[in-house]
Amino acid sequence: MTTGTSTPSGVSGSATAASVAARAPDVVAALGGALPPGRVVTDPDVLASYAHDEAEWAENVLPVAVVRPRAAEEVQAVVRTCIEHRTPVVPRGAGTGLSGGANASAGCVVVSMEAMDAVLEVDELERFAVVQPGVVNDDLRAHVARHGLWYPPDPASSPWSTIGGNVATNAGGVCCVKYGVTGDYVLGLQVVTGTGELVRLGRRTAKGVAGYDLTGLMVGSEGTLGIVTEVTVKLRPLRDPERTVAGYFDSVVAAGEAVTAVAAAGLTPSALELVDRHCLAAVDAWKNMGLSDDAEVVLLGRVDTPGAAGDAEAERMLAAFEGAGASWAAVSTDAEEADALFAARRLAYPALERLGPVLTEDVCVPKAAVPAMLARIEQIGAAHDIVIANIAHAGDGNLHPLLITPPGDEAARDRAQLAFHEIIAGALELGGTVTGEHGIGLLKRDGLVAEIPPAVLAMHHAIKEALDPHGILNPGKVVAARRR
Amino acid sequence: MTTGTSTPSGVSGSATAASVAARAPDVVAALGGALPPGRVVTDPDVLASYAHDEAEWAENVLPVAVVRPRAAEEVQAVVRTCIEHRTPVVPRGAGTGLSGGANASAGCVVVSMEAMDAVLEVDELERFAVVQPGVVNDDLRAHVARHGLWYPPDPASSPWSTIGGNVATNAGGVCCVKYGVTGDYVLGLQVVTGTGELVRLGRRTAKGVAGYDLTGLMVGSEGTLGIVTEVTVKLRPLRDPERTVAGYFDSVVAAGEAVTAVAAAGLTPSALELVDRHCLAAVDAWKNMGLSDDAEVVLLGRVDTPGAAGDAEAERMLAAFEGAGASWAAVSTDAEEADALFAARRLAYPALERLGPVLTEDVCVPKAAVPAMLARIEQIGAAHDIVIANIAHAGDGNLHPLLITPPGDEAARDRAQLAFHEIIAGALELGGTVTGEHGIGLLKRDGLVAEIPPAVLAMHHAIKEALDPHGILNPGKVVAARRR
Repeated sequence: MTTGTSTPSGVSGSATAASVAARAPDVVAALGGALPPGRVVTDPDVLASYAHDEAEWAENVLPVAVVRPRAAEEVQAVVRTCIEHRTPVVPRGAGTGLSGGANASAGCVVVSMEAMDAVLEVDELERFAVVQPGVVNDDLRAHVARHGLWYPPDPASSPWSTIGGNVATNAGGVCCVKYGVTGDYVLGLQVVTGTGELVRLGRRTAKGVAGYDLTGLMVGSEGTLGIVTEVTVKLRPLRDPERTVAGYFDSVVAAGEAVTAVAAAGLTPSALELVDRHCLAAVDAWKNMGLSDDAEVVLLGRVDTPGAAGDAEAERMLAAFEGAGASWAAVSTDAEEADALFAARRLAYPALERLGPVLTEDVCVPKAAVPAMLARIEQIGAAHDIVIANIAHAGDGNLHPLLITPPGDEAARDRAQLAFHEIIAGALELGGTVTGEHGIGLLKRDGLVAEIPPAVLAMHHAIKEALDPHGILNPGKVVAARRR
Repeated sequence: MTTGTSTPSGVSGSATAASVAARAPDVVAALGGALPPGRVVTDPDVLASYAHDEAEWAENVLPVAVVRPRAAEEVQAVVRTCIEHRTPVVPRGAGTGLSGGANASAGCVVVSMEAMDAVLEVDELERFAVVQPGVVNDDLRAHVARHGLWYPPDPASSPWSTIGGNVATNAGGVCCVKYGVTGDYVLGLQVVTGTGELVRLGRRTAKGVAGYDLTGLMVGSEGTLGIVTEVTVKLRPLRDPERTVAGYFDSVVAAGEAVTAVAAAGLTPSALELVDRHCLAAVDAWKNMGLSDDAEVVLLGRVDTPGAAGDAEAERMLAAFEGAGASWAAVSTDAEEADALFAARRLAYPALERLGPVLTEDVCVPKAAVPAMLARIEQIGAAHDIVIANIAHAGDGNLHPLLITPPGDEAARDRAQLAFHEIIAGALELGGTVTGEHGIGLLKRDGLVAEIPPAVLAMHHAIKEALDPHGILNPGKVVAARRR
């Protein structure tokens, strides 16, 4: 058993770092007593693998223990034990988060939901599924497809990320430009509250307005208001096959102009993704797909409207690409080629990570501002001598500039941090938000303070304190502790 | 100036009835001083017309004043004045609510948003509109249609009800079965908070997860957490014309079976409404439309999928109607006739109200439970000797049994109240909710307590107290005051 060797940092809520650390052996023993054998892990190597999510740039330490519950009642036992011991609880899905929402704080217990991975129910007639939080996004999609149904939200992390984590961050994805984000598909939740109660929120009916929308409040709250132990997701019928429209552009700004043109044409694509040369080259270097020779930037559009109407929309998207100056553009007639391009888009982030530390941005701006924001990102990269790769859910205005620094180059990391903050400031200036789909976590706490006025931040604190009166639910994430 | 002659009741929050009434002249004078001339009304006849919404069965009294602000800052001045005087503020749109959410409580000030009725902005490219809360639902739809855009949520009250009231109740409507409810279209809000701050929540971008979803929390909170002074609504492109499928059935249960059959066939209608003979007869008696001779129940389905796919869906809906035993069914080839049937559905409620006091139910059950719930409603009506008319957003499982009593028949009113509670209990037994779209207000407070466990009710109280620390925002609605 260990209490971690890193410097404690990021502790907040009602417990101080020192007081929490002093109680660590007690809480670990109490958890062992409250749970079946094998649930509590204190092996230092295991703890190290649960110290942070994909936001390793954000502060993190070793947790005092990792707990892997197998039932909602076990999660409840963890929370109750941690209330008694005033120990922070950090819930975690697959750890694919990009904002540090699952990073361990000093003296905390990480609760990993990975073993709670059952699809409990699929109701074809009412079109919903009930799942445990550890179900992997792609697994849910495959499972319900066997019932003729479709779960749309598809973050790029879909092969690994879990529904619980998707709910905690209100994850977006590729098809969200037409079909909405995770929160649009959450009908109901079972959660363990900050007072240790196990409750159901929401409903199973198509409509319902009984009381405050606590389900919606939990979605995107990153485990700071409750720990999700079960999710009821809304489903759609399986859709028709998509047509793909690909366009090559000589600059990200030109591609951005094509994105605005698609919106101005009144189209609603089922996907509109941007991938630049840095990303394509990184995927090629990893998977040898031969993608990166032809274009500075690729724009990938999709249309899933059935029949002749869909054909017409694809042609209008093509015209928008060409009107914005595409060096080459076509409606794909080769499904395999189209799928390869989308696969490359999904692989871009892990491919870049292989090359060195990546600091991921997630700003979202109005569609009309996409070209201006992409130009701003280029200027910021040049000014700070930082390589910035771009992938984007461009049709939503949700941009992911990826700041890449050579391994071990501390000066470059410092410059990247400056660039990161300038990109956030630029997005706010253009009427955007600091996070389109990744969440605030730790990395965007300053961004949140820049985006919302003090009175709205005070509302956040008031709700946090109302629903987590002991200050133990993922404290310090989303909002820093309020000095009282 | 008057403080009302009815028996004070329904007062809650931190102010008692006696203490509030005693301060009434003070607060009226203070409001007069804080606002431009003409905003504060104390004429007793006017006060009487603002004592309640359409839920006159629920407790209500005369307010001490009605304020008609013309700007957000004036609403803020009202709230600040009412905080100082510990006076309840009851916000009100058009007063078409059916649960008593806008009913005046003892000593309260009613804030009517009817004069704040401007459409401030329509952005065609980003597909949103910014409106003041007093804009009438149908007026918004007509306004944005001129920009080629569509605002879907269409409660039956759409010719009269306002967007602010729709937001406060998270109103549903006819097309929600395919397109979702009001909350699905609210991108951002400007609100006056319980501490008298004027703040913006939400965003203008397609996506955004910066902080807790306070916008979603405000939607459906019936003015108990904040007063909406501006709404940014998401819009869609105008859609293709709909096909109408009409079916006549010999019983509501048979029509309910057709509803389940439509869901089982995997169809997503753009409307699926049920109207029974009582409603058709009442509309005929008012508007002489000649509708009520042919059927015990009419089911009205619509499909808006374009092209051949839509034609095929209409035929499948027709087959579902016929398979469930329709005495007559057809895909309408006469747009005027189809529109007349939908107009009758919209007029059903006011037509019935002409005949005597109507107690409106709003339960929502799983689609598979629609026939069972309709049968249960028939049994309850028979057992209590109450005429129960039925209109329903049947495709959502959202039923509106309308309990009709002869004017002045107090015994019948008492029996109707019993039937009302039995219908609620029946819906909960079948896995439903006590309110699909009308809200809790006053009429469904007991229903809410029956639907959610004490721990979830406690979460409601915690949030209410966190965001309305002075207990002045529409106190006693949604949740009764907590004894502390």
